[in-house]
Amino acid sequence: MSDLLWPGDDRAGDVFADASVLAAMVRAEAAWLDALVRHGVAPSGAADGLDGLIGPDDAALVAAGAEAGGNPLIPLLKLLRKRLESRNPVAAQWLHKGLTSQDVIDTALVLCLRDASDRIRADLAVQTAALIRLADGHRETLMPGRTLTQYAVPITFGLKAATWLTGNLDARDRLAAAASLPAQIGGAAGSLAAPVALAGSPIVVRGLIETAAASLDLPVRDPWHTARAPFTGFADALVTCTDAWGRIANDVLVGARPEVHELSEGAVAGRGGSSAMPNKQNPVLSILIRRAALAAPFLAATVHAGAAAAVDERPDGGWHVEWSTLRTLARRTVTAGSQTAELLAGLQVETSWMTANLAAARPGIDAEQRSMTPDTGPYLGATDQIIDAVLARAGEGRRGDLC
Amino acid sequence: MSDLLWPGDDRAGDVFADASVLAAMVRAEAAWLDALVRHGVAPSGAADGLDGLIGPDDAALVAAGAEAGGNPLIPLLKLLRKRLESRNPVAAQWLHKGLTSQDVIDTALVLCLRDASDRIRADLAVQTAALIRLADGHRETLMPGRTLTQYAVPITFGLKAATWLTGNLDARDRLAAAASLPAQIGGAAGSLAAPVALAGSPIVVRGLIETAAASLDLPVRDPWHTARAPFTGFADALVTCTDAWGRIANDVLVGARPEVHELSEGAVAGRGGSSAMPNKQNPVLSILIRRAALAAPFLAATVHAGAAAAVDERPDGGWHVEWSTLRTLARRTVTAGSQTAELLAGLQVETSWMTANLAAARPGIDAEQRSMTPDTGPYLGATDQIIDAVLARAGEGRRGDLC
Amino acid sequence: MSDLLWPGDDRAGDVFADASVLAAMVRAEAAWLDALVRHGVAPSGAADGLDGLIGPDDAALVAAGAEAGGNPLIPLLKLLRKRLESRNPVAAQWLHKGLTSQDVIDTALVLCLRDASDRIRADLAVQTAALIRLADGHRETLMPGRTLTQYAVPITFGLKAATWLTGNLDARDRLAAAASLPAQIGGAAGSLAAPVALAGSPIVVRGLIETAAASLDLPVRDPWHTARAPFTGFADALVTCTDAWGRIANDVLVGARPEVHELSEGAVAGRGGSSAMPNKQNPVLSILIRRAALAAPFLAATVHAGAAAAVDERPDGGWHVEWSTLRTLARRTVTAGSQTAELLAGLQVETSWMTANLAAARPGIDAEQRSMTPDTGPYLGATDQIIDAVLARAGEGRRGDLC
Amino acid sequence: MSDLLWPGDDRAGDVFADASVLAAMVRAEAAWLDALVRHGVAPSGAADGLDGLIGPDDAALVAAGAEAGGNPLIPLLKLLRKRLESRNPVAAQWLHKGLTSQDVIDTALVLCLRDASDRIRADLAVQTAALIRLADGHRETLMPGRTLTQYAVPITFGLKAATWLTGNLDARDRLAAAASLPAQIGGAAGSLAAPVALAGSPIVVRGLIETAAASLDLPVRDPWHTARAPFTGFADALVTCTDAWGRIANDVLVGARPEVHELSEGAVAGRGGSSAMPNKQNPVLSILIRRAALAAPFLAATVHAGAAAAVDERPDGGWHVEWSTLRTLARRTVTAGSQTAELLAGLQVETSWMTANLAAARPGIDAEQRSMTPDTGPYLGATDQIIDAVLARAGEGRRGDLC
Repeated sequence: MSDLLWPGDDRAGDVFADASVLAAMVRAEAAWLDALVRHGVAPSGAADGLDGLIGPDDAALVAAGAEAGGNPLIPLLKLLRKRLESRNPVAAQWLHKGLTSQDVIDTALVLCLRDASDRIRADLAVQTAALIRLADGHRETLMPGRTLTQYAVPITFGLKAATWLTGNLDARDRLAAAASLPAQIGGAAGSLAAPVALAGSPIVVRGLIETAAASLDLPVRDPWHTARAPFTGFADALVTCTDAWGRIANDVLVGARPEVHELSEGAVAGRGGSSAMPNKQNPVLSILIRRAALAAPFLAATVHAGAAAAVDERPDGGWHVEWSTLRTLARRTVTAGSQTAELLAGLQVETSWMTANLAAARPGIDAEQRSMTPDTGPYLGATDQIIDAVLARAGEGRRGDLC
Repeated sequence: MSDLLWPGDDRAGDVFADASVLAAMVRAEAAWLDALVRHGVAPSGAADGLDGLIGPDDAALVAAGAEAGGNPLIPLLKLLRKRLESRNPVAAQWLHKGLTSQDVIDTALVLCLRDASDRIRADLAVQTAALIRLADGHRETLMPGRTLTQYAVPITFGLKAATWLTGNLDARDRLAAAASLPAQIGGAAGSLAAPVALAGSPIVVRGLIETAAASLDLPVRDPWHTARAPFTGFADALVTCTDAWGRIANDVLVGARPEVHELSEGAVAGRGGSSAMPNKQNPVLSILIRRAALAAPFLAATVHAGAAAAVDERPDGGWHVEWSTLRTLARRTVTAGSQTAELLAGLQVETSWMTANLAAARPGIDAEQRSMTPDTGPYLGATDQIIDAVLARAGEGRRGDLC
Repeated sequence: MSDLLWPGDDRAGDVFADASVLAAMVRAEAAWLDALVRHGVAPSGAADGLDGLIGPDDAALVAAGAEAGGNPLIPLLKLLRKRLESRNPVAAQWLHKGLTSQDVIDTALVLCLRDASDRIRADLAVQTAALIRLADGHRETLMPGRTLTQYAVPITFGLKAATWLTGNLDARDRLAAAASLPAQIGGAAGSLAAPVALAGSPIVVRGLIETAAASLDLPVRDPWHTARAPFTGFADALVTCTDAWGRIANDVLVGARPEVHELSEGAVAGRGGSSAMPNKQNPVLSILIRRAALAAPFLAATVHAGAAAAVDERPDGGWHVEWSTLRTLARRTVTAGSQTAELLAGLQVETSWMTANLAAARPGIDAEQRSMTPDTGPYLGATDQIIDAVLARAGEGRRGDLC
Repeated sequence: MSDLLWPGDDRAGDVFADASVLAAMVRAEAAWLDALVRHGVAPSGAADGLDGLIGPDDAALVAAGAEAGGNPLIPLLKLLRKRLESRNPVAAQWLHKGLTSQDVIDTALVLCLRDASDRIRADLAVQTAALIRLADGHRETLMPGRTLTQYAVPITFGLKAATWLTGNLDARDRLAAAASLPAQIGGAAGSLAAPVALAGSPIVVRGLIETAAASLDLPVRDPWHTARAPFTGFADALVTCTDAWGRIANDVLVGARPEVHELSEGAVAGRGGSSAMPNKQNPVLSILIRRAALAAPFLAATVHAGAAAAVDERPDGGWHVEWSTLRTLARRTVTAGSQTAELLAGLQVETSWMTANLAAARPGIDAEQRSMTPDTGPYLGATDQIIDAVLARAGEGRRGDLC
């Protein structure tokens, strides 16, 4: 599964792929079934890991059946039950008992989003390492600082990389805060009525939920069928990532303009070519990252629009709009994160062009300095201290400041 | 190809499916190659329909290769050329000559969007027919008119259906105005430099373009690589469709509430069931249509954001963000259009509940009438004339008004 | 009224200012009252132009009273009636008779949008003239063509200006198609029940509507309380404008980078300065235009989201979200249109830098040419023909193509 | 200052009003000037609180002058300096020294956003209290649970209120995490070059920044001119609020439908009336809250789009698009928060209708129970435990769960 019209999408691999979504739904069902058995609510004969029943090839059938009930869990469950029936009829009878479709779908989305989050956090860490190298290694690499497209005052490329790193760390912190998505187990209208009817008491149900969530390695939370902040917060965190990467890509795209020539993407055989112009070496990664940053705000906003449309004990469309939107946003963010990690790892810093551009920017670019001080030295202010502070934040995982 | 997480997506069939996109790119290349041969620019030995060279199974390979050059045409072209080489080396040599990637991709998007448009227009026509029946057949079916959720004055269901029909006709007209998307043939920077170099003169190139566009049954237009109003206009028209259908779905969803009970989706075996509640008959089509209407504005806005990011002779991300976005928007609109057609065809109008609700709304709902006139008759104003006007617009394809 | 946080907003003057909105609501009421009198539905003593009753100073009071009824018409009407009472009690009695709040508010929005449209169309025409000069005058001004930020093939600045002009003409045509917004007269639930009760027959009401609409110089249309394509279409047209201007601004911002130096905004005393850097000459107009282009897609999408939320005979929020959104979008588009007109009128084309950049781009930028032809001439393809076609479209108001 | 076209906007009072924005910019300048004096960088004669120099009446002049430099700080500074000149020429000379426009504008935005945040958090607390009463007081108030618009299983209104409360607490937590926005002090290109030139060393500048930030009661942070997560995170938190309130409003709007009749807005003299229908009592607060929830996702997404457009050391439009957008989003959220607090305080719960609707929903609504258990008791599952958990979270400010 790869989006032909979103080049690079194959980087996201099986994150949120159809097969992964199916597997996640089966995992959610299996965790609940296992909890029912372990707590003695279901008989031990109902124990079944649900392994090997559903595979990638079932995606088309499930997709085709999803409209009738309005969600893909219903046809999946039918298929699962049918296949389980012959292997373990007791399990087939206990399967999904006490749950509602939304429990399983929300939990499956959570599992897929966690996979995405793991991938993104790994790539953020790779980026962080590269950015530390760039910020630290180019503390003294002078270049023109630019504001509103025009020369402002001299800076160093290390300072610029430190601001990229700040964005990276903001994204890291935001994602860390949002990534701990809870399991969803609430029953038909979020009262846990069916589970309690099955298990006999809320106390036992509490145990069931804890067991099921623990086996999925997810935190527990009260039913959140209509309180969607977990998903909107996650989506917001993803956009915080693409915002930060978009800013890096924008800077590289300016730096890669032949007249500026300060930055370029590392050469990779076969990358950046043109279908007609043999001379071209296009900054493809940056272009594709920028593309993701353009689109992501709209996707996260769609998740919010779904949340804001919540009504009753399960909404009439506001829920349904989340699924594919979250998948698209997650896969694109994984892709852009991987591309940004590669971009930064291979980034070519053309220090001689930085020097030349700064020379050409003189004397205009020194005007502020002349108006402030007779000193004609480097005029770099607290660049070192700022870089140190950002590096400290990066290294220690703490919130950095100038102190 | 069907989006597991967008139930109903299989209704869109192969519209904009990977195989269709590949085929459309091949068609665009073939039309140009054919034009080169027909105008004597390429030798007659270069004639080749490019049939049978690329199939659905190539999608994964092309997708995987799309990142290196930033678009899927480059790997497709490589594959196509390689396979063509053994069959027709002269054709392989002339393939794509004079074109740029954007020419082929834009034209392929146009072809896929036209397929979507054809499907949507057919479904709009089916909807129109159903709406005419509803508006005309329920001219006198009294029900409470509601504004701001509260009883306002009595109306007839025919009047409501006429307002649905107005939305349908607005969508039809908007789509008709936007659907005639042109071919894109401009060469590397939109100057037609390579085609003219090949063909010897702008006059011949004009003939080439006309021939190629005609064989694709597309209008001709000056290069529009960076003037994206054709795509934004199409996207806007699609949202105009989902807006109109969303309003219908919203009304059905209110009418289907058990306390209101005025409308229901036609019963279809297996549809609307629940994974846990045997009593449920959910208005699934309306829910899924409403979902599409929630998401569509964000997708069209993304296309605009891409257009607004145009720069240089081909933009650095603004172009790339269009492709998958247009596909998603197009497939979802096709799906929602089909669902709305089915919804309207099967819609159950519970006239007895309308009558009962109106009775329960009295005397409050008659307050305006009492304040306006001593007449205690139906108070339906120009309902008949309004319905007639909308029906006339529907029937004659003209812009309707009260006259 | 000027948005302190949207520099340039004062260019929009009184378009959609509070005073203009109040005046437009009064005009809509006056047109209806006049129609009632002229058709003999109201007595001749009810004739009153409603002049001089409401002024700009009433905005705060009306705004403060708008929440209670959920719209500003209700407090305005109360005020109007009270003041009219002493001057013309008969008119006070007939005021608003037969109308509903939405009739007046929608019609007032239409009047304000028309003012915006007039301003934008005038500025589009100024832009068209400037673009014709640029395209025609720089037919042979060679510069590097750039795709994906890199050198592609040589073009002329006239060709680039022609693509800007294409965007301008697309915007012009889109706005022309959308600008003819109709009056809204439908009564409480869109059935014209109250007007018919007053006037005695649908035929007379038809006359009333035609008279009222004619006096406002607006077309007539069936009630469109819940079919919002007129407003979404207008909003889409506004974004089509900002898209086109954003692309121009993006090009100027690249061209104004000191390393590129091909374009600059005309110097205006006091413009483009910095609070701290005396050397700066910032391309302020382009920056502010680009800002508008970034925001506009979200605003038009909000109007669509409102339309898609339509339900019942008047929606519960979907209508209300339109008002301020349309105002903001309209004022910003007027502002950006004026800024773009000024930008183009004063644009400095640095032909010597274009020449120098092209020279520096060689021999790479000639690679495609070398691969296509032994001819080492200008390689401009059909540049002249394309410019001619666009100029013809501009001049004749027709849809242009290569023919 | 109140938005005539956004009824209820006057609830936001002077939050982010023009006068407040001007005052906040002056406060930021004053804090810096004070720090310069206190640390001996400026002479003691430069001490000036800048009081009484700028007032609300200056807004129009500043707004009109904002375009020339692209931001409102430049004309404000000019005015401030001119007026200060006669009172304290030494202060006038030191004013703004070392700062850049973005430092002052960003810090002023932060101050205004903090005011908004204070208001919203106060209203969230009022809502929390009301929701605790509703959840606790209606633990046993039976009503039909509804999913996908249809009857699902019985619930209690207390459970529904608990889910509303969950949304409220999610919003509270999100806003608490985002609200601590830092001061912005970085100088022209974020290197603190000018401050260090003035003060002699980074150590002294660190002291200056700490002093200035402390006097504004803001945290310190490294320059974040191009790393905009503070603003996007704040905007996301605001949408998390409107999402939660939108869901409450949606439920009230369904409950207020006359056929459902379970909920109504408290009667307030003069509220909810119609311009033509004396019978109407519209749920105005809910409608206006829902309106805000429809629009907010687009506004926060605009802030993200600005962040993603960051480039160089200050972006060419991405920064400028934030200002008015943040203001609009903040004022609307303040307004909606106040409306929601009032809505909840006055909410009428029609328990008899809940009872009657539940009775009418039988036996269908009991189908799940019948399929699960022979017990025909209340079937409320863990309702009490869930309510307790949410109340505990509300009371203790901790993250709640079932345990």
